This record gives sequence, structure tokens and C-alpha cells, in this order.
Amino acid sequence: MTTALVVPQDLQTLGREMYELVRLLYPICRSITGDGVRQTLALVGDRIPLQIREVPSGTQVLDWVVPPEWNIRDAYIKNGRGERVVDFKRSNLHVVSYSIPTHRRMTLDELREHLHTLPDRPGWVPYRTTYYTPDWGFSLSHDQLAALEPGEYEVVIDSTLAPGHLTYAESVLRGKSESEVLISTHICHPSLCNDNLAGIALASALARALAGRALRYTYRFLFIPGTIGSITWLALNEEHLNRIAHGLVLACAGDPGPFTYKKSRRGNAEIDRAASVVLRHLNREFSFVDFSPYGYDERQYCSPGFNLPVGVFSRTPYGQFPQYHTSADNLDLITPQSLADSFAACWGIIAVLEGNGRYGSVNPKGEPQLGRRGLYRRVGGQQISKGDEMALLWVLNLADGDHDLLDVAERSGLPFAAVRRAADRLLEHTLVRGIDV
Amino acid sequence: MTTALVVPQDLQTLGREMYELVRLLYPICRSITGDGVRQTLALVGDRIPLQIREVPSGTQVLDWVVPPEWNIRDAYIKNGRGERVVDFKRSNLHVVSYSIPTHRRMTLDELREHLHTLPDRPGWVPYRTTYYTPDWGFSLSHDQLAALEPGEYEVVIDSTLAPGHLTYAESVLRGKSESEVLISTHICHPSLCNDNLAGIALASALARALAGRALRYTYRFLFIPGTIGSITWLALNEEHLNRIAHGLVLACAGDPGPFTYKKSRRGNAEIDRAASVVLRHLNREFSFVDFSPYGYDERQYCSPGFNLPVGVFSRTPYGQFPQYHTSADNLDLITPQSLADSFAACWGIIAVLEGNGRYGSVNPKGEPQLGRRGLYRRVGGQQISKGDEMALLWVLNLADGDHDLLDVAERSGLPFAAVRRAADRLLEHTLVRGIDV
Amino acid sequence: MTTALVVPQDLQTLGREMYELVRLLYPICRSITGDGVRQTLALVGDRIPLQIREVPSGTQVLDWVVPPEWNIRDAYIKNGRGERVVDFKRSNLHVVSYSIPTHRRMTLDELREHLHTLPDRPGWVPYRTTYYTPDWGFSLSHDQLAALEPGEYEVVIDSTLAPGHLTYAESVLRGKSESEVLISTHICHPSLCNDNLAGIALASALARALAGRALRYTYRFLFIPGTIGSITWLALNEEHLNRIAHGLVLACAGDPGPFTYKKSRRGNAEIDRAASVVLRHLNREFSFVDFSPYGYDERQYCSPGFNLPVGVFSRTPYGQFPQYHTSADNLDLITPQSLADSFAACWGIIAVLEGNGRYGSVNPKGEPQLGRRGLYRRVGGQQISKGDEMALLWVLNLADGDHDLLDVAERSGLPFAAVRRAADRLLEHTLVRGIDV
Repeated sequence: MTTALVVPQDLQTLGREMYELVRLLYPICRSITGDGVRQTLALVGDRIPLQIREVPSGTQVLDWVVPPEWNIRDAYIKNGRGERVVDFKRSNLHVVSYSIPTHRRMTLDELREHLHTLPDRPGWVPYRTTYYTPDWGFSLSHDQLAALEPGEYEVVIDSTLAPGHLTYAESVLRGKSESEVLISTHICHPSLCNDNLAGIALASALARALAGRALRYTYRFLFIPGTIGSITWLALNEEHLNRIAHGLVLACAGDPGPFTYKKSRRGNAEIDRAASVVLRHLNREFSFVDFSPYGYDERQYCSPGFNLPVGVFSRTPYGQFPQYHTSADNLDLITPQSLADSFAACWGIIAVLEGNGRYGSVNPKGEPQLGRRGLYRRVGGQQISKGDEMALLWVLNLADGDHDLLDVAERSGLPFAAVRRAADRLLEHTLVRGIDV
Repeated sequence: MTTALVVPQDLQTLGREMYELVRLLYPICRSITGDGVRQTLALVGDRIPLQIREVPSGTQVLDWVVPPEWNIRDAYIKNGRGERVVDFKRSNLHVVSYSIPTHRRMTLDELREHLHTLPDRPGWVPYRTTYYTPDWGFSLSHDQLAALEPGEYEVVIDSTLAPGHLTYAESVLRGKSESEVLISTHICHPSLCNDNLAGIALASALARALAGRALRYTYRFLFIPGTIGSITWLALNEEHLNRIAHGLVLACAGDPGPFTYKKSRRGNAEIDRAASVVLRHLNREFSFVDFSPYGYDERQYCSPGFNLPVGVFSRTPYGQFPQYHTSADNLDLITPQSLADSFAACWGIIAVLEGNGRYGSVNPKGEPQLGRRGLYRRVGGQQISKGDEMALLWVLNLADGDHDLLDVAERSGLPFAAVRRAADRLLEHTLVRGIDV
Repeated sequence: MTTALVVPQDLQTLGREMYELVRLLYPICRSITGDGVRQTLALVGDRIPLQIREVPSGTQVLDWVVPPEWNIRDAYIKNGRGERVVDFKRSNLHVVSYSIPTHRRMTLDELREHLHTLPDRPGWVPYRTTYYTPDWGFSLSHDQLAALEPGEYEVVIDSTLAPGHLTYAESVLRGKSESEVLISTHICHPSLCNDNLAGIALASALARALAGRALRYTYRFLFIPGTIGSITWLALNEEHLNRIAHGLVLACAGDPGPFTYKKSRRGNAEIDRAASVVLRHLNREFSFVDFSPYGYDERQYCSPGFNLPVGVFSRTPYGQFPQYHTSADNLDLITPQSLADSFAACWGIIAVLEGNGRYGSVNPKGEPQLGRRGLYRRVGGQQISKGDEMALLWVLNLADGDHDLLDVAERSGLPFAAVRRAADRLLEHTLVRGIDV
């Protein structure tokens, strides 16, 4: 018999704690490697046990190679008067991530081809990267660019790009089974809150809330740089991937937009069905979208050679909020309430995974007499209660070994929790037997 | 070659006869056992041949036990002035079915917990039962309850609850095949017309109309008490259930609401497809709903260990009309016209079962030349007739042994009768051969 | 690697050429046999290489027999004053096709049963045939009929109905594979433009545009009389039918109505999926309809014994435009632009057939690093381009040997051409390998 996963009591407190973690992580300059990642993981590690992995630059991982490690101390553009007109110290978005070390003097016209702006959003600074092409650049607001006067500028990027390591972390909670639920979130974005400090905070909160519980599955939380991180993890763990029973990528989980679940490549994996049943019962707007091979690390988990059952949980997805990959993805875009709601939704999905299973009726021929066992109302002739009695009848009717409790929830339209509760009562009365639970 | 089932000519007369049977059955106090059931079956037996079965109390049937037999002669509540303020003789709904014998004096307050009313429908008396919990009670209108003065009351229920029998009846019409169509209706409700004297009248009329015809299937009509009746019949006939090819539960078939067909648990059984095609062509509103494990005896037929292809035909289904299980489900709720329409719809479904089959084209390569055989219009260039010629072409095109005539009706959108007629003409001209007909 | 089929440059010129062929063919009196067919094929043969087939009258073809050959020189109805009140020389629609030779005097009343009009369209002359019933008749406008005065008329039909041949033509373009694409159009209708001189012009233009190209499939164009022509061809080629990989019937392709694609009997054949993807991306209204066994020669190709994957391409389909099978289906009903658009749509479908295939990723585990190969934008952080980069990711993700490029187009919503281009780029970089291409 499965113990139901009770939602941690105080979601409001949880939301505030998650927001606080985001606030602490916000100033750090992260990239796909480097000390910003290490500082980030240190703060996460204050909350949940983490195993830090360091993979040397140059390591072959699938079709990729772990790049040199990038670190940066300072960067700026100074005008003729010696004023820092663009300054890394004010926002780490100003430097194109993985910019090579640079110290040059150049005219505004020469400089221009290294400058990135958003003409349509003249007040915002875009986030740009050049991980795999040795280059350098600055991002700035279009207004800043417009204010630059002709003349000579001094450009300094005090970065290093040198053999080092790619850093990521795992947090593993052992359950009864060796089968794993993979929860993956990317940690490579600098001062951007929804994408993806919100995901980091959500994953941390889930790991913390699950810790110490009696779990059916083993839970593996991955805090990894996007793309190269999942590629690296997959390469290093290829022989264990058959343990991954379900997976979720968490991203963009803090804005106030409606929930979005992106299905795994398989399209009808248990994680996809679980998300559908849970989101449907939250009684709020949500999107349930098909897999596509663009997005976050599901691209790697769902590549054809792996095809893992991994979906994506987010609120407004990548590229669909105007602040995406700009300086406007800041602490104002996300809220403690949205983070808490995201937590509750993911918790619901996990509760389904923990509680799902196939059952066999002990009395499959005709209904068992529920009244005799105190499971049915005493006075007949009244309408059936929509909730508990219907759930008992549904579980019994589909306790044929072919249907799982998710099927029951889908067909009956009842919340999964009611279905699970019914199964527990039937187990108590030895009216059903677990088959694969 | 199958002979089409022609609809009995005068549906209006049929409707009046069905209503008349309801009128005769209405006063009888029925329950799941007892003399009310026997009187009911006697009246049905005046119309169609019935085999009455008596199963002793205490017989183990699946997970259940046949209960003691219940009979009642009188029951009332008398006030201090000796007036019968609630009186079984005025409506058998006043006594909770299966009430144990009782003779007590008690205050109004003590009495209250044995009284059942409908506060929202203060003029109506609810129908209540206590089959499997030894208890007693009265149903009355909320207005009646409000008029009761404080003081002492005399309560009398002159019932017996003693070893006896569970009574049900079967009417079997032998067809060419041993495969059976099961038509089941419940006979346990007291003075309630739509639920289910209408079902009893409909089943009786169908049995009577089918009698004496050359039938493909054997038809087994069951007149049984709800739940315990089907449980009992299933227990006694377990080894013959593989003969059940199709089945229908009839209930709530007399009100003026739109037809409702509830699919079998299988969801796409031939009976489900037949009902869909027939109801679609009646050109009136109807509902076609998925199986759920609450309702009437389909709960037992469609339990996972049997999973018989049994659907439910009704008009407004259980619990969805306000008069359901109240004294307002009376002779005014149902009409001869509604009963006759229900008959016609069920007759149409039976005609599909009788007429369906798979055929193989004798000339599967290219179309056979229909004109030469007088099966096609002589002058070409005109639009094809929507009806007969299209039906010929459709039957020929799907005469591949994989598709049955229901497929033809579904794909072509033609009425099943037109498809059946086309198959008959093609059989006449040896253009198709029956495969499983 | 497949070379994309580039659309011939000047669609406007093509449209004008197609219309010009219709104009030349319009006056000819065609039927299912006879010299009109031969003249028609001679004009087509001026444009594309044709093999003419002559099949003797009396030949048994499947369930049919090739009928006597019909030819006509003159026909008229003369009134008492010797005036030709109905005259074949003014429109070949005036004579019911296959009318037997006739020379009689008769009253208007006797004559009436041989006269065909359209009371609802009093100015139009209907098209009528009597191929397989020896009879004769005239078609005329209802206004003409109304103007006929009582009295005696002289009726002359100077036709011959005698042993001869059924004539049809094939044009075969050899491709790399022996698998064939069958493109069939009917040539038996007299002066009717949309049905089906438009189909003849479209088939001719496609054959001409494909000639001389390096093709994957072999293309077989059939110019045949309706029904008896496809029956005859199928009978004579029965042992080669397994070569037909895809097929299209072309008809009613010149009016300005929206495109209509009628699915093959299989319903999900590659040709059906190709048509769906192509029509969806033309950004204009279109219909995509299920197979039904009435229409043109798809009736024969899709008879159950053959069940070939043959769909129908048309604009407004048979019987759904008011001018259908009347004198109003004339040169004004069709336009060069509509013909050209039809050409482009069919060309698109052919391009899909030529370019479709299944591929296997060389790096199925994780994504290959596209940036290193110059296949991905250099600066990260920006939104992905909707077109080319997404197409690369989609092809890679579905390069699992199970999905073909049509699946990629369907799932991604991208045009097939973009998908094909992506596959070509991936082939160039040895990132995918062809499996069945």
C-alpha cells in the first residue's frame, strides 16, 4: 500500500523561501562553466545535499567536447573621457558569455559589430553567448547605444578561457525502487530570473520537500548547464539510463503566466498522462503542448537514440514572454506565489507517479458487496456521492490488470488523489491486489 | 439471406398497450424479493411466455448472498388522535423498502431519525431502501413532516423478513443461432413509472413483437431485481455467458426526454456501433455516453471479470430527471408516445444486429457491371441517386471480408436499412457472398 | 541524395498553354470509343510522347466486355417546315452519347420520351449517355423544348455502332525505380471543359514538365475513357499492379473553386499524406475528403480486389458545381490561372513523393553539434529561426528509421520543401543516412 504524498503545509512560506533563493542567486555571473556555477551550487548545497561533479575540459561527450572553462573578473567599454559607458559590474548581461579576453582601442564604428541591442525594446539589455565560437562582444540597451558618441573607445574584457572543468551537481534521494525520476534544471544563465533561477529554486524546493520521506522511486535532481551539461551527464551515465522511468525538465517556472506542460517525445508516457491529469484538476488555464526538438535539455533526453520519457514543466515557455533572455527577466518578473503554485503542480505530478499502479480485483465477477464492508451508504435510493463511492466503483471496474490508476482518473474525471484514496480503501478490505506497485 | 425486420405497423397502438401495462403495474409494492415481484411477473406473463425462477434465500451468488424475502401488508404512523398521518396504503413509497417489522410508540423527535424527506421538493415523497442493513423507516413529503405536531406517535410496519426466495423471470425466443442477445430490465422498484415500469413495458413489447419471427439470434429477456438479480443470474449461468453476443439494459424509457445510449465497457462493441448508427438516423436529439460503473445492471454485466458487450438504452438517464426516485415519477411523467418511440429505436437496434454481417464481393477487382443486371440507371450522365445506387456501390466496395454492414453504414452515412437492402439485392444477383452471416 | 523538383518557372505561360489545349479539344465529339477519342489523343500526342492502345470490341475485361465502337457524323430533329430545331452540328451534347442509328418521323408526344432537358436550368443542355443500353435520345435546353410546336418531326441520328476498338493512351516516364506513380484522367466526355478537358490538359502539362528529369519513380500517365477504360487497363495489366506505389486521378481541375483532394480507400496512404501536407501549405481554402465509391476511375483502382493507393485531385468535385454535365461547363467556366494553380499543387504533391524517405541519424544519442559544422547560428541567446534551424532539429529528432520526412512535415508544421532541404544539408554533413530512399 502506498502512502499518499501530502502537500507540505505552508505553500506561502515555501514560495517566499524559493523567491529568497532566487534573490541570492540573481547577482552571480553564471555561464556553462566557471566559478559562477560553483557559487550557485554552493548556495543550493546549503539547502539540499549535492554531489558536485567536475568534468575536465577536453573530455569527449557524445558528439561534443567539454569546452575550456570561462571565468571573468571585469569588463567595460570606456569612452574618450575615461567613463565606463558599458560596465560588467553593473550587469553581467553586458558581456557576451564566453567572450575571449580583450583589451583594445577602437572607433565606435569598429566597435559596433561587437555590440548587441534590441531595437524593439530600447531599454532592455539582451543576453547573448558565444560558447563554441571564439569571439567577444557586449550587450547593451538600444538607448545606451544611441547615446554613444563617435570617437575612440577602450574595450576591456578581463576573462580567462582555459582548461578547467565543467561543473554540475546531482542530488539523489533513494526510494524503494532503483527506478528513477529524473528532474533536471539548467544553471548556466546569468542574471535572469524566470529563465532559470526559478527552475533552480523549484528543483531545490522539491528535493527538500521529498527528503526524508518513504519514496517509491529514487529521485535524481540534476543541476546542469544547458545542452553541454545534459550531453555530458548522458555520456557519463549511458549504461544507467534504463533506470530513468520518468523525467521532468523544469524551466521558466516563476512568472505569473499559465502552466505549460510540453510532452515527452513519446507523447503518451506516464509522466505525460500524469501531468495531464494533474493540470486538468487545478482548475486554472494551462497549455499541454506536443514535443518539439527545440527548448531545453529535453532536446537531449528525447533525442532519438535515448528517447527518454522526459517532459517539461514551465509557466510561460521559452521565447514566449517578451522579457525572455533580456535584462527584464529580473526579480520583478517572478513572484513567490507563482513559484509556490509551480511547486504545488509539480508535487501533484510526483504524487501521481508515486501513487499510480495497476490493480486486480479479488472479485472481478460482478461487483463485490461494498455495503457489507461499510464502504457504501446504508440507505439506498439516494443519488450516489460523486466522490468517494464513484471512485471505489471506478477502481473496481478497471481493476483488471490492464488499466492503471491514471486510466481510472482519466476515464472517471475524478482527481487522482480520490482514485488513490479509493484504491487504498479497497486494499485495506482486500478487494483489490496490487500488480505492479 | 437475412429477412429484414419490418417495424410492427401500428406504433401508436403499441404505445398505448405499453402504457396500459405500466398503469396495471403501478400500484403494486415491489422490492428485490416478495409477492410484489410475483404479481408483476404474472401480469407480464399474461403478455409473453415467462419462465419464473425462485432462488432460495441464503444462496451464495458471487460475492453476495440472496437475502431473506420481504413482504409487507400494512404500515403507518398514527398521531395522538389515532389518525394515520403517514399511510402505506396511500403510497407504497412511504415505507423504506425492506423495513423490518416494527410496532413502537415514540416521540416525534425519536421518530425523526427514521423519516426521509426531500426538503428541496417539499411536495414529493422519496424512494428509499435498506436491503442489506436491518433497519426501518418511512418516507414522506417535507410538507407532511412540517405538519407533524410534537407528541407521541404509534409506528407500525407489518412486514415480514424471512427465508423465502428471490424471484425473477426469463423469456427466451430461440433463433437460428445459439448466440444470444440479452435484454435485461429491473423489476424491483415500487410505484415508480419511468424507473422502471417503462423498462418492463418496453422489454415486454419487444419480446412480444419478436415472438414467432424467424430470428438469427436467440433472445433472452431478463426481468430481474436490480443488482442482486443480475448477480444471481450471472452466478447461476456463468458457464453459458460466452453465448451472450450482444446485450441491452432497458431503463427509464418512458419520459419525453431525448434518447440516451450508454456504451458497454468495451466501448466499441457491435451493440454500441449499432446503437450509434440507429440513433444518428432518427434525426432527433440523443446522447451517446461512455460507460461508467454506476447505473443499472450493466454494472454487473460489465464488471471486469465478465466484460459482456452490454449497453444501456434509456431516455433521460437515472438521476438526471428531477422526479427520479420520488413520487413524482408517476403516470404523468411518461407517455404512450415516448414508450412507442423507445420501442422503435430498440427495434432499429435489433434490426441491425439481425441484419449485420460481413460479405465478400464475387467480383472484387473493379466494379461489377451493375447496369447489365438492372441495378443501375439506364441513362448515364445524371447525378447518382443518393440512396439505392450509392448503397450498392458502398456495399460492393467494402465487401472485402474485413468490413461489416455497420462499417458500410458508418462510412457511407446511409441508414442501415438501405445498406441491408443493398446487400440483399447484391445477394440476389450473386454479386456478394455472406461470410459470417 | 534527392534532387528537389524545382517548379517550372513560368506558371502563367503554363496556364495559358493548358487553356489553349482545352480550347483545341473543346469542339471534338468524344465518347468512350470512336474517332473523337483518337483525335483527342492525337492533339495530346503533339505535346507528349503517347503509346496508343486499341482494344477490340468484345474483349472480356474483368466483369465487363469492351463495347462496340460508336461514331457519329450528324444528327438533328427537323420540324414540319424542315428546320433543324435540334442540331448536333451546333453542339455535340445534343445527342445522347452511344445513340443507335435512327431515322424516324414521329409526333412531338412520341418524341418527348427521347428528349432530355433540365427544367431547373432552362437555358442549359444536359449531357446524357446510353453506353450499355441500346437506345437513342437528344438533349436540349428546356427553353428549346418549350418552343417546340405540336406536329410531326423528322429524327435523324447518323451514327454507327459496330465492332471496332476502345482506344486509350499511356505516356511512361522511366525513373530510377520500377515503382510507379499512376496519373489517370478520363477522356470520354464531349464538349465539357472542366470535366474533363481540364484534367487532360493538367495531365499533359505534368507529363511534359517531368520529361527529361532524373526521377525517382517511374510515372505512368493514363488517358482513358471513364470506367470501361480503367477496367480495361486494369484487366490488361493485372500482373503489374504491384508496381503502383502511388496514384492520382485528375478531374475537374480548371474551375476557380477551392482544391479538393479525395483520399484513397486506404485513407492514410503516402499519397494521401502528401496531398494533405501540400494543400495545407498553399494557404488557401481546400477540402480533404474521405474516399467514397462514387466519382471517377478511383472507383476501379480502389475496388476491394485492387485497393490501390490512388486519390483524386480536383477543384470543385463532380456534381458539386451547377454547370456539371451541362453545356455551361464551357470555356468560360475554367481559367488559365486555375489550371496553373492546379498544376502547382500537383507538382507539389509529386515533389513530396520524389523527396520523401526515412533517415537514420548518425548521432542518435543527444544532438550532434551543429554549430561546429556551420549549421547553427554563431551567437547564442537569440530565438531560433523558425525555418531552417528548426527543420534541421526536426529531421534529426525523427531520424530514427520509423518516421519519414512526411511525418516530420506533419509534426513540425513546416513545409515539406524546408524539411527536404534540411535532410539534404544533413546528408551533406553525413549527419543522417538514407534508409529507404
